[in-house]
Amino acid sequence: MTETPLIETPPIDTPYLLVDDAVLRRNLRALAERAAASGLQVRPHAKTHKCAQVARRQLDCGATGFTVATIGEAEAFADAGFTDLFIAYPLWLTEGKAARLRSLARRATLRLAVDSVDGAQQMAALLGSAPVEVLIEVDSGMRRSGTQPEHAGAVAEAAATAGLPVVGVFTFPGHGYGPGSARADAARQEAEALAAAAESLRRHRIEPTVISGGSTPTVAFADAGVLTEIRPGVYPFNDAQQLEIGSCTWSEVALVAVATVVGRDGGRIVLDAGSKTLGADRPAWATGFGRLPEFPDARIVSLSEHHAVVELPPDTKPLPALGDRVRVIPNHVCSAVNLADELLAQTADGIEAWPIIARGANH
Amino acid sequence: MTETPLIETPPIDTPYLLVDDAVLRRNLRALAERAAASGLQVRPHAKTHKCAQVARRQLDCGATGFTVATIGEAEAFADAGFTDLFIAYPLWLTEGKAARLRSLARRATLRLAVDSVDGAQQMAALLGSAPVEVLIEVDSGMRRSGTQPEHAGAVAEAAATAGLPVVGVFTFPGHGYGPGSARADAARQEAEALAAAAESLRRHRIEPTVISGGSTPTVAFADAGVLTEIRPGVYPFNDAQQLEIGSCTWSEVALVAVATVVGRDGGRIVLDAGSKTLGADRPAWATGFGRLPEFPDARIVSLSEHHAVVELPPDTKPLPALGDRVRVIPNHVCSAVNLADELLAQTADGIEAWPIIARGANH
Repeated sequence: MTETPLIETPPIDTPYLLVDDAVLRRNLRALAERAAASGLQVRPHAKTHKCAQVARRQLDCGATGFTVATIGEAEAFADAGFTDLFIAYPLWLTEGKAARLRSLARRATLRLAVDSVDGAQQMAALLGSAPVEVLIEVDSGMRRSGTQPEHAGAVAEAAATAGLPVVGVFTFPGHGYGPGSARADAARQEAEALAAAAESLRRHRIEPTVISGGSTPTVAFADAGVLTEIRPGVYPFNDAQQLEIGSCTWSEVALVAVATVVGRDGGRIVLDAGSKTLGADRPAWATGFGRLPEFPDARIVSLSEHHAVVELPPDTKPLPALGDRVRVIPNHVCSAVNLADELLAQTADGIEAWPIIARGANH
Repeated sequence: MTETPLIETPPIDTPYLLVDDAVLRRNLRALAERAAASGLQVRPHAKTHKCAQVARRQLDCGATGFTVATIGEAEAFADAGFTDLFIAYPLWLTEGKAARLRSLARRATLRLAVDSVDGAQQMAALLGSAPVEVLIEVDSGMRRSGTQPEHAGAVAEAAATAGLPVVGVFTFPGHGYGPGSARADAARQEAEALAAAAESLRRHRIEPTVISGGSTPTVAFADAGVLTEIRPGVYPFNDAQQLEIGSCTWSEVALVAVATVVGRDGGRIVLDAGSKTLGADRPAWATGFGRLPEFPDARIVSLSEHHAVVELPPDTKPLPALGDRVRVIPNHVCSAVNLADELLAQTADGIEAWPIIARGANH
């Protein structure tokens, strides 16, 4: 019940996700220009936005195609007319999943991932003659999926022998999500792992034409002497994680949750955006469960499903009032987007609703 | 590629959520019997399941109505024919939200929550003569929302003066989510806070007829000498949090994610269920990001959007093979359910698909 609202937002019931299209477009152009200057192709990870409007803008900025994590995401983007898709995940195929991939391969250029001899043989046996290309996933230090770089050639040879056309290698340097030198260190390990994997393929007489790396935190350090392609996901929107590890600035954050102050007790306020809006992601190094651009020194100290408890610095003036609207930057924008059915976007033409076409497309 | 599958599950593409209806029904009956023996009414929190099939079973076990967290959840359940609803959240009303509540009040018995004089006055001003009942939320130690118990009477009097019929007080003892004596301690504080709040109302000449508490972890310690009603949410399904704080046993877990082993490196396996299936919730006291009923000593040591990295004890035999299916108990079942469009339920009549009718209903 303040006289002047804290922020100007559409008069829609909170909480909701709001995109600033001008910032989004600036982020897309900046990355495209940096990649072009280095001769790197950009194949953005669409799991971040799951949204045709963002994907279209990425193509307009020169993206060569898209990365997705699941067959369901690939189906959603193929249905929306995006026809160059890399499923960067070591799928274990069943008859059901193979049938879906064969169908996809008829309407899209499809790249798939393998990281084991068994996985490659299973894929070849179930896909038959479907026209796909295959990349070998290698671990560059995250210890999640991917074979060791020196084994990439053996996996590639098994895939090729089974009938799969191997076109290259890829990795995800997810251990670049961290403070200090994590981003630069992970990018260096990414380049070393990809170079070793490419060399391993060559020893097995397979020439890799695609050498593909991550990621929004590491992309500024990507080694264009090794990589041919980058697959950043978060960069269109950015988020509080990127802010806190130094891979974006406040003015580069293009997506916020708009929330209402529903409780207040001195310098402690409660917002109606909780983990079912923002996501519950909170890495150990994060300072809270998200950040508030109007209150950069505030911290979200606890998060329930529909409550964010925010502690404001003692000298905050004026304190937000009950009913005020506040913007919140989620920790991990991929999680926040996947919880919503649509994004509201402030564009040059006014407010638009952008559907999340691959929300929940986990299988 | 093991000869005998590790677990028998429907041959549907992983990951998906699977409910054991027999366990679900047993959980509902056990709580209903305990509450009846204590003379407590049960108003389950439907935010956990967001599912008409579970709500129907709760009514069949004697639930008096439902608790929800948002207007959107109330709308979804009213649309499905559930007409006694308590929105246990200190809503800050706008014209838009008030219009939705007035519409709801025409088709459901509606209880609302306030925890401040300003919130009560705003509610009364915007709701007009809509037939609702109001409960005063008090804090019992969680420090999230709710007024202090000794102020409950003043808030209640403001609400009543503004024209809202105040019928009682409620609290959520969410600080009972913890190891050791947290559950019993929180239940004791719950009873103390509710008793003080009821007394505060009486001092303002308002007789509370509803004295309502939480929660799955504390319900075994609920003080039936003070409370008239309990609002547990998680108990139909349970989850890894409830397991680890001792408020359920393995055999009382009624919902799992079914995942496929997509990677293996010695005693370390990778599953295709990540934070977009399980939720990213991980309280500080949790031992990981979920638990595996077939491997009770295994731990999910890291979770990405579509990967769970599991460390198995060194003596695990046989180790799961690539392609095996594994069951995973999410840390926080409310988050997992809200990520899915439907639950698959193994019932006496076979597999049924139960829609999540209030998924994403955050506003």
